[in-house]
Amino acid sequence: MTYADRLDAAIARLKNPCLVGLDPHVDALPEEFAVVRDPSAPRAAKAEACATFLKGIIEVAAGRVPAVKPQSAFFEMYGADGAKAWEEVVAAARSAGLLVIGDVKRGDIDSTAKAYAKAFLEGSSPEDQGSTCDAITINPYLGADSVQPFLETCSRTGTGVYVLVRTSNKHSALFQDHGTPLLHEKVALHVAEWGRQVMGNCGLSSIGAVVGATHPAELARLRSMMPATPLLIPGYGAQGAGAKDVVGGFLPGGRGALVNSSRGILYAYKQPRYAGLHWKDAAREAIHDMVAEISAALATP
Amino acid sequence: MTYADRLDAAIARLKNPCLVGLDPHVDALPEEFAVVRDPSAPRAAKAEACATFLKGIIEVAAGRVPAVKPQSAFFEMYGADGAKAWEEVVAAARSAGLLVIGDVKRGDIDSTAKAYAKAFLEGSSPEDQGSTCDAITINPYLGADSVQPFLETCSRTGTGVYVLVRTSNKHSALFQDHGTPLLHEKVALHVAEWGRQVMGNCGLSSIGAVVGATHPAELARLRSMMPATPLLIPGYGAQGAGAKDVVGGFLPGGRGALVNSSRGILYAYKQPRYAGLHWKDAAREAIHDMVAEISAALATP
Repeated sequence: MTYADRLDAAIARLKNPCLVGLDPHVDALPEEFAVVRDPSAPRAAKAEACATFLKGIIEVAAGRVPAVKPQSAFFEMYGADGAKAWEEVVAAARSAGLLVIGDVKRGDIDSTAKAYAKAFLEGSSPEDQGSTCDAITINPYLGADSVQPFLETCSRTGTGVYVLVRTSNKHSALFQDHGTPLLHEKVALHVAEWGRQVMGNCGLSSIGAVVGATHPAELARLRSMMPATPLLIPGYGAQGAGAKDVVGGFLPGGRGALVNSSRGILYAYKQPRYAGLHWKDAAREAIHDMVAEISAALATP
Repeated sequence: MTYADRLDAAIARLKNPCLVGLDPHVDALPEEFAVVRDPSAPRAAKAEACATFLKGIIEVAAGRVPAVKPQSAFFEMYGADGAKAWEEVVAAARSAGLLVIGDVKRGDIDSTAKAYAKAFLEGSSPEDQGSTCDAITINPYLGADSVQPFLETCSRTGTGVYVLVRTSNKHSALFQDHGTPLLHEKVALHVAEWGRQVMGNCGLSSIGAVVGATHPAELARLRSMMPATPLLIPGYGAQGAGAKDVVGGFLPGGRGALVNSSRGILYAYKQPRYAGLHWKDAAREAIHDMVAEISAALATP
């Protein structure tokens, strides 16, 4: 079954397009995981603390949202111990029935891209089977031949990729808005074309695009340029965008996009709105509130 | 001491600018490491085979070239076992007196970029100290705010980065040549500007650029646009460029650039030129020949 079809079914089953970003920020982890802030603590203890925290988040996300998005940088900080924690977290999320989008933003020449596709989407050995991702994010800077190995892997293994098109950070325009058409528009047209190689029965492709919600007008324009492309929309919540800002990224019926929130969910316990709640209960409430906000915005004509 | 100064001194000491890329391609590893080609073999055995092979290469590279460049994708294929092998290989190279440029091509929003800088350049825990890199490659697509955390880390810790400007793959022009000026020229101008924040006493910056040798005219133009920027030049050898093609990337005296060869050195044992030699002896000869070829080309007025 293609990634596109599995994604479309998961969004329909959960009745919402919310994606929980799993970014274990050292400075924000709850006090019971303070070991990550101790410079002299063993690395394995820090990595394990991150995994335990995220498995708690996965418990409250499971059955409530279709997917989670672990950010590899926060695991790579702990070297081999972090890589082990990454595998535990990915496996826990998949076992809990969540789709897993590995936020790895890889991009390299073809023979190297093949190795990355193997690393994250296919696995190289029997013991990898539970800990590969359903999809990953990739960076298009190197061009079409750096993307092609991912298209082949996605076709063969029922996985997906999200190509960075327009990111949600403050200065993303520097290079992404270069030239005429704007660079990110050119990338978007290629993403739409690449996507035709890996279509699902649902009419959507398994080749998606990352398009920040912090640029709502662009979001609607990019949606129309990539009509069959699943979007991954970061920028909601802690990064500043609201529910109304993301509506332009969707196809009719609330299909074809995932809206990500990371800090807004994971560290909800720090917000006045959830004061007094245990971090896990705060995350559950924050997921509930995000689902309600996005659903209401999508239902408004 | 800045990365720029350490690099400049290493090139002067070894009297050549050759960089050995450590890419353990599954299909090309010598027969004694055939375990990597066995789909049912344990992952740890595969990762260990890659590490053992590369430690053999490091032995013949040490004292002959200034630096090595491990490619993270080929380690990430083996998950946590691969991450352990990466640390072993980086530590072995540093112990052998080689500079280590981690070819990781990371790029992400600022808080995440900080985590990557910590992961590869600084370390998060006492046990990381021997296994961080002297420099890494990074991807500029996300813009200046995604690069800034690396500049800060490089300043503080005496490390470096090489920003992807123009890559050596066949279809790199698709996005890198977009617009006027060409996107990669715009990136180059920013790299030169960012570099002024992290200058060494030698007059070079610790902020470098990746510029493929497969485009020799561009290489000379980009050299002039980034006069104080160390270049990392891939494309020599297996990727098709010769010694004459790389000369334009150098400053007077053979300074300011490293020329990479990966497959041409590691898998020299497969070339008719080195027939009958053990893989390690073939690699030693191939390094010798590359050093001679590049030195001769640099000496030709």
